[in-house]
Amino acid sequence: MSRPAALPTDLEIASAATLRPIADVATDLGIAPEHVEPYGRDVAKIDLAAAAAAPRGKYVVVSAITPTPLGEGKTTVVVGLSQALRRLGTNAVATLRQPSMGPTFGIKGGAAGGGYSQVVPMERLNLHLTGDFHAITAAHNLLAAAVDNHLHFGNELGLDVRNITWRRVMDVNDRSLRNVVVGLGARADGLVRETGFDITAASEVMVLMTLATSYQDLRARLGRIVVGYKGVGKPVSAEDLGVAGAMAVILKDALKPNLLQTLEGGPALIHCGPFGNIATGTSSVVADQVALSHAEVVVTEAGFGADMGAERFFNVKCRLGGLQPDAVVLVATVRALKVHSGNYDIRAGRALPQELFAENPEEVRAGLANLRKHLEIIQAFGVSPVVAINAFPQDHDSEHAVIAELAAELGVRCAVSRHVAEGGAGAEDLAREVLAAAEEPTRFTTTYALEDTLAEKIEAIATKVYGADGVDYSPDAAKALQTYEDAGFGDLPVVIAKTHLSISSDPALMGAPSGWRLPVREVRANVGAGYVYAIAGDMRTMPGLSRHPNAERIELAPDGTVSGLS
Amino acid sequence: MSRPAALPTDLEIASAATLRPIADVATDLGIAPEHVEPYGRDVAKIDLAAAAAAPRGKYVVVSAITPTPLGEGKTTVVVGLSQALRRLGTNAVATLRQPSMGPTFGIKGGAAGGGYSQVVPMERLNLHLTGDFHAITAAHNLLAAAVDNHLHFGNELGLDVRNITWRRVMDVNDRSLRNVVVGLGARADGLVRETGFDITAASEVMVLMTLATSYQDLRARLGRIVVGYKGVGKPVSAEDLGVAGAMAVILKDALKPNLLQTLEGGPALIHCGPFGNIATGTSSVVADQVALSHAEVVVTEAGFGADMGAERFFNVKCRLGGLQPDAVVLVATVRALKVHSGNYDIRAGRALPQELFAENPEEVRAGLANLRKHLEIIQAFGVSPVVAINAFPQDHDSEHAVIAELAAELGVRCAVSRHVAEGGAGAEDLAREVLAAAEEPTRFTTTYALEDTLAEKIEAIATKVYGADGVDYSPDAAKALQTYEDAGFGDLPVVIAKTHLSISSDPALMGAPSGWRLPVREVRANVGAGYVYAIAGDMRTMPGLSRHPNAERIELAPDGTVSGLS
Repeated sequence: MSRPAALPTDLEIASAATLRPIADVATDLGIAPEHVEPYGRDVAKIDLAAAAAAPRGKYVVVSAITPTPLGEGKTTVVVGLSQALRRLGTNAVATLRQPSMGPTFGIKGGAAGGGYSQVVPMERLNLHLTGDFHAITAAHNLLAAAVDNHLHFGNELGLDVRNITWRRVMDVNDRSLRNVVVGLGARADGLVRETGFDITAASEVMVLMTLATSYQDLRARLGRIVVGYKGVGKPVSAEDLGVAGAMAVILKDALKPNLLQTLEGGPALIHCGPFGNIATGTSSVVADQVALSHAEVVVTEAGFGADMGAERFFNVKCRLGGLQPDAVVLVATVRALKVHSGNYDIRAGRALPQELFAENPEEVRAGLANLRKHLEIIQAFGVSPVVAINAFPQDHDSEHAVIAELAAELGVRCAVSRHVAEGGAGAEDLAREVLAAAEEPTRFTTTYALEDTLAEKIEAIATKVYGADGVDYSPDAAKALQTYEDAGFGDLPVVIAKTHLSISSDPALMGAPSGWRLPVREVRANVGAGYVYAIAGDMRTMPGLSRHPNAERIELAPDGTVSGLS
Repeated sequence: MSRPAALPTDLEIASAATLRPIADVATDLGIAPEHVEPYGRDVAKIDLAAAAAAPRGKYVVVSAITPTPLGEGKTTVVVGLSQALRRLGTNAVATLRQPSMGPTFGIKGGAAGGGYSQVVPMERLNLHLTGDFHAITAAHNLLAAAVDNHLHFGNELGLDVRNITWRRVMDVNDRSLRNVVVGLGARADGLVRETGFDITAASEVMVLMTLATSYQDLRARLGRIVVGYKGVGKPVSAEDLGVAGAMAVILKDALKPNLLQTLEGGPALIHCGPFGNIATGTSSVVADQVALSHAEVVVTEAGFGADMGAERFFNVKCRLGGLQPDAVVLVATVRALKVHSGNYDIRAGRALPQELFAENPEEVRAGLANLRKHLEIIQAFGVSPVVAINAFPQDHDSEHAVIAELAAELGVRCAVSRHVAEGGAGAEDLAREVLAAAEEPTRFTTTYALEDTLAEKIEAIATKVYGADGVDYSPDAAKALQTYEDAGFGDLPVVIAKTHLSISSDPALMGAPSGWRLPVREVRANVGAGYVYAIAGDMRTMPGLSRHPNAERIELAPDGTVSGLS
């Protein structure tokens, strides 16, 4: 992310921070000490009993216009906005996903916010934190072991060995594990078959944890996980294999959200980290339940642009979790709007073209169709949007003005936010607009009814949210939809896995594409987590390391000091 | 384990226990609050800085005669003895291995002691504890990913793809992962090759953590890990791959020992859990350094019988860790000595024959050769042994008397211990004998010099410790020894991986076998951990689940209560 030349690095800022005792942070939020379990000095787990009170807080979700491959700073807005709200005397809390550890050793940055809007301690946030991802890995792989154990001992349930959908997971970037053959060796070493590994963030258990509302609900959802199918197309579940209870026990502590703090000492609940393409891309329902039980305002994030993140935040997370949204912050940047003019080719890992930083309000205006479309998407859900202009040092006032003009024209609140360079103080204007928007009456409505068919739901998202002319299914996808309807999964909500770099399914189409159809290549079901997902594009669920990964720059000094994490 | 009919189950006893605040347990041990980091309410991590003081405590290791497949209760003796010592007014601490989580869902029991000599909280001890095993899994597998990433990007170092020794690990019982092919799929999905997974307890990183003495030493050992060889037989290390620093960062918190408590509220440091056959089978050097810095007596355990566990405790752990042993407790049971008469066939998972429980002091006497041999093994190290008769409810006084007679004949201290049924109160006699033995002068000596060749070291253990007539090497083993000497690993200590069910390498030979030779099939090097190991027998490094594993009996209730763990 671009930043003022004078600004220290994220790690320098985070390392220089003086952290408050985490018990004090919990107390300020209003959580009773008996619900706070310390995990090290600067992190605590919050007991689910802390969510027993009736929710009282306003629920604000931070979304964005269609991002460039670099991201437009949603996480920094969540942190900066929560900091600003607390400066204004509001008991606010940020709720965010936990970053995946695997990519820490690949390429990455900014998982904990950035600049003066970060969550700390950064070292623990980027590594094991309290071990929740490890617990998810262990529960997932116990089920995988049970599947192969069942095959080894004679396959009493009649699983079709060529239609086993449950893979294994590991929180590491390891391309060699994408496709593997297991069970080689002697008879005692299991049955030979092809399978593979995904990164833990892509585990169905990860998103299941995100959507579970209680221990009872967790246990029930785990039991419903489908691991594969019988010869005749009937699903076989974790319950059938008898290990859902053990999985729940492995996950017991992991279901408790983790309390950390912002650089300004306010509370941040960090919990779960499901993928934003094949899953919800949000933090957990239970973390938000805990937060809403205590805070006046809860600021959370939905992955990618509003077409993807906000859509499933409303249609899946809020609906399944019984949560009522009060406002949406839509993050826009000058640079991304310029890219939506269609005049730039931006790629991750490459330097941004210098022309992007020249004063050019007309190019911003040329990209406004994207912002307009995302605002329409949000308004269709009946929730008030606020445009947050995430200011970068290379921006020009004339460019911000173009964005503000559109907001004024549409009657939408808007503010410039300088939280990366200035912390909460830089987001106070935004905070005031968000407080006002959250006070407005909300007529929250979803895009489809759960009673609609799966095909109707997919079509509703494609046409009503994305603006597609319709949906085209591959023969396999059409067949899978029918199979899922027959298997009784037809009343689940849906998630559409497509590129996040366009509102359409073609990453090259900028702005607000029209005259296109959504091509669905494949449909899969996360029955335990509780949704069906349609795949429109290539979805990679196990990253690889680069030729010289970040791991090569990470070091531990003899005194225990860590360097090279970012 | 057999137990009085009236005794509640381990889980019932553990669940009924009232735990002390862990901070108070630390204070009693003498650890300053600034070195204590709470992890939940009942567990803390102890900062390595707590080991800075000069060691002051007596160092007592609990070993055993050659066990039956059921084990003879060493862990219960460690816990019960530490409880008894505290009852006598001695500041004692137990240091133990952390149980592996994978087998919790297979078949197992008693990892935390048993009866009224247990470490609590049992639930956390048997599951994630503070995540150390998960960190070891992650560090191990990051290195594996780096190996395959290096191959993917052109294999600049020239690794021989068919001589890569670094596998992957997972803390799960999953036989299907023993032998796998990775890298299938497209060109972007890595290089196809055969490899496999071990359980995390078998990871070289696990035993490396056990032997590391500081962050600096941890970092250096990680760098020396050999992942495979170049075409010309030269080792390639984790340092060569550039990821040893990142591994150390992943392991930073895991190197801090975990403080739990005994059922009587005394301190227990739980740390690391390497295999007892291919590794040291001990808890960590740093945990013992911390313990010896504060306690008057530190009671720890060495895996299996004295031929294996105590041998490598002295020759490897004490030598590499700079630790000075003061006494050995040798656990003997009536039932195991009867088995050493050669008249019984005992197998894990089968009920014990009823004849084993009939009063029969002559059969105990017939097995005494095993006890005598183990006492000789210990005395050769120059450390005073104490025989602990671990009393079972089916024992008869006449049978205990036979054991005590032998001890008296050899001038060795001896006591009956009833710690399982009675807790610390039942081990006070033993505690008094141990205190007296630890006061005696020690002339600690090792079996071989590090300067000896690897073959000389293996021969020394085989002949001087086991009582073999000599060693026979397979051609592969002989070649490997030469390769390791050439590669500069000749000055490492050695570990011999053989059956624990006999002092010989043949599990069927009871008592004190003579007239046999040790057949070494294979030799491997854990260069990072710092030893070479010779394999004499089949060593399984990835267990499988049974047809109906314990996982099927484990359940989470809606209120979060766990059942079925044992």
